[in-house]
Amino acid sequence: MGLRFEVHAATEGGGRRGTLHLPHGMVETPVFMPVGTAASVKAVPQGMLETLGADGRGAEIILANTYHLYLRPGHDLIARLGGVHKFMSWDRPMLTDSGGFQVFSLAALRKISPDGVEFRSHLDGSKHFFSPEHSMDVQIALGADIAMAFDECTEHPATHERTQSSMALTHAWAERSLRHFRENAHRVPWFAERGGQRQNLYGIVQGGMYKDLRTESTARLLEMRDAEGTGFDGYAIGGLAVGEPREVTREIIAHTLELLPKDKPRYVMGVGYPDEIVEYARMGVDQMDCVLPTRAARHALLFTSEGRLNIRGKKFAEDSGPVDPDCACSTCLRYSRAYLRHLFHTGEPLAATLASVHNLQFYLDAMRRVRAELHGQGD
Amino acid sequence: MGLRFEVHAATEGGGRRGTLHLPHGMVETPVFMPVGTAASVKAVPQGMLETLGADGRGAEIILANTYHLYLRPGHDLIARLGGVHKFMSWDRPMLTDSGGFQVFSLAALRKISPDGVEFRSHLDGSKHFFSPEHSMDVQIALGADIAMAFDECTEHPATHERTQSSMALTHAWAERSLRHFRENAHRVPWFAERGGQRQNLYGIVQGGMYKDLRTESTARLLEMRDAEGTGFDGYAIGGLAVGEPREVTREIIAHTLELLPKDKPRYVMGVGYPDEIVEYARMGVDQMDCVLPTRAARHALLFTSEGRLNIRGKKFAEDSGPVDPDCACSTCLRYSRAYLRHLFHTGEPLAATLASVHNLQFYLDAMRRVRAELHGQGD
Repeated sequence: MGLRFEVHAATEGGGRRGTLHLPHGMVETPVFMPVGTAASVKAVPQGMLETLGADGRGAEIILANTYHLYLRPGHDLIARLGGVHKFMSWDRPMLTDSGGFQVFSLAALRKISPDGVEFRSHLDGSKHFFSPEHSMDVQIALGADIAMAFDECTEHPATHERTQSSMALTHAWAERSLRHFRENAHRVPWFAERGGQRQNLYGIVQGGMYKDLRTESTARLLEMRDAEGTGFDGYAIGGLAVGEPREVTREIIAHTLELLPKDKPRYVMGVGYPDEIVEYARMGVDQMDCVLPTRAARHALLFTSEGRLNIRGKKFAEDSGPVDPDCACSTCLRYSRAYLRHLFHTGEPLAATLASVHNLQFYLDAMRRVRAELHGQGD
Repeated sequence: MGLRFEVHAATEGGGRRGTLHLPHGMVETPVFMPVGTAASVKAVPQGMLETLGADGRGAEIILANTYHLYLRPGHDLIARLGGVHKFMSWDRPMLTDSGGFQVFSLAALRKISPDGVEFRSHLDGSKHFFSPEHSMDVQIALGADIAMAFDECTEHPATHERTQSSMALTHAWAERSLRHFRENAHRVPWFAERGGQRQNLYGIVQGGMYKDLRTESTARLLEMRDAEGTGFDGYAIGGLAVGEPREVTREIIAHTLELLPKDKPRYVMGVGYPDEIVEYARMGVDQMDCVLPTRAARHALLFTSEGRLNIRGKKFAEDSGPVDPDCACSTCLRYSRAYLRHLFHTGEPLAATLASVHNLQFYLDAMRRVRAELHGQGD
């Protein structure tokens, strides 16, 4: 049984509205997925996440990072406690990344071989080894609804030659990821409890900023099959938002979307600013994630219908209005700009909570508006 | 119009159950008041404070610190925004201290004269001066329901002679506090809006660990009157929990309670551990405050029906049970000890929120049980 993904309406521009049916519930797409790095969306209690958004429906799916949870508290511990949903008390869909991105960006002394990556923990210098098979085992132990194939993250900029060889490694690892994942699907902690449902695995298209390589990578991933002849449940476009100009990001996304099947979900990893996620959703991207709304919030940067503002600014000192007059989040309904500014200036921990709630609501509301717009056009 | 304080039931041991009628609402006593130092109970959103406790009634009154708000964002700014209730969006009763305790414990280069205290800010070294009149002006600008007289906080230990002269200064300042406060009561930001209701002022009994001085201090405070012949609205017992043995604290409280009028609220400042607040409430103390539940929470120390526990402990790593099986707080209803331990170990900001909510609920529930017990005995 593969992933059930219904596409309800599609526009000429490629944008589409759909529903993902996952073991822990349904997700309306296009969707923005808040990042809960170490099984916590930083500074936001789960109960607040569940009620975010002008409609109060909350975040329908969140992300957790495999690398972080592998190191602390350990995937085996989480599996013994029933998986990451139970561990963090989040009963809605979740997605885990493969750990690859953090191994390549955070860990030290990486040694890459065809078999996998040896690295040292950024926390204590301890030595670890991630192979595609190991990444799958860790993600199965965590038990998110969607897992990701293990890929090499190419540095940017990279030559055509370097990008091509990195991509070849990613393809070999994707194939191994798919086979190992499907062979071990029954090991997910909630397998019996959820009537034999299984996790979903997405492949990741690489190829850097080269369209010919993106074409080749997409073709290779589409033909990959597990032992029973089943391919990936969805496809991600990886290796973007790594420092390239935004126009390039857009072009690579547009180019790759053309090549991906219309009946499978498409996920662009690690983007972006509010106007970017709206733009990509209109182009046909179904899922996106980014630390930006929560990380910016912790640095007092707030997204509003009137543009970005740094709430630390002197001009907000006596501003009794809400962060965003057009926002109905619990922060804007209750607190003033003056109070938020004060919380940041005094280093109060509440600052991060109130600001993160607002920014996440801004992102979720933006996607809800895109879904409404796609619904209207497609019907 | 003085403070309306109804005593519903009293026991032979001195404990009593009552209701404080304050401009922003009623408070059932004995009550524990969470501390919101800089107009935020650290790491706890106001909405969570309002629903704390097994009965979901939340904190009925909270504290804010005059010294901190005077320095940042400034009392004049808060007054222009309508007072501290509006500033922090807390529509229930509040109490502010006089600023004295922080001037004596945090500020640098204090110079005390009969007129007041000159000091330098612990934040930027800037020079400030607090007199009784200035402390009252600041507290009127903040506009809490209960304000405190400005007193000198004697260091501990102190000789009888030193304690006596410090007490004499406190008495002179208390008299000036009372007169200035009442003459300026109409300046509170919500005076017109709340139909001419005024703030309440409590006097502070000093005298260190000497019973004769406590007797003298209580007598002096009880005879103080404003220009219209009205005394203080309530009385605090100050200068305790400064390092003396607990038996001494208890004796001084018992001694002073005997001398205080039965129809006025009694407040012991800065105590204590859960068993202490229960003990003092049973002796007849009506109000208490302490940073302990929130400060301990931020250091992973949790109070439970089974005793204190440091949730960082290895033994909680795979403990899927709640912090306290007898607790119905939002943390215990939803999260495991293993998850809380993980949040502390990874430095997640959610740790402080979940732990603080639990400890505050533990304190509020303890006081609710004492109220129920006093009700039964007194009826």
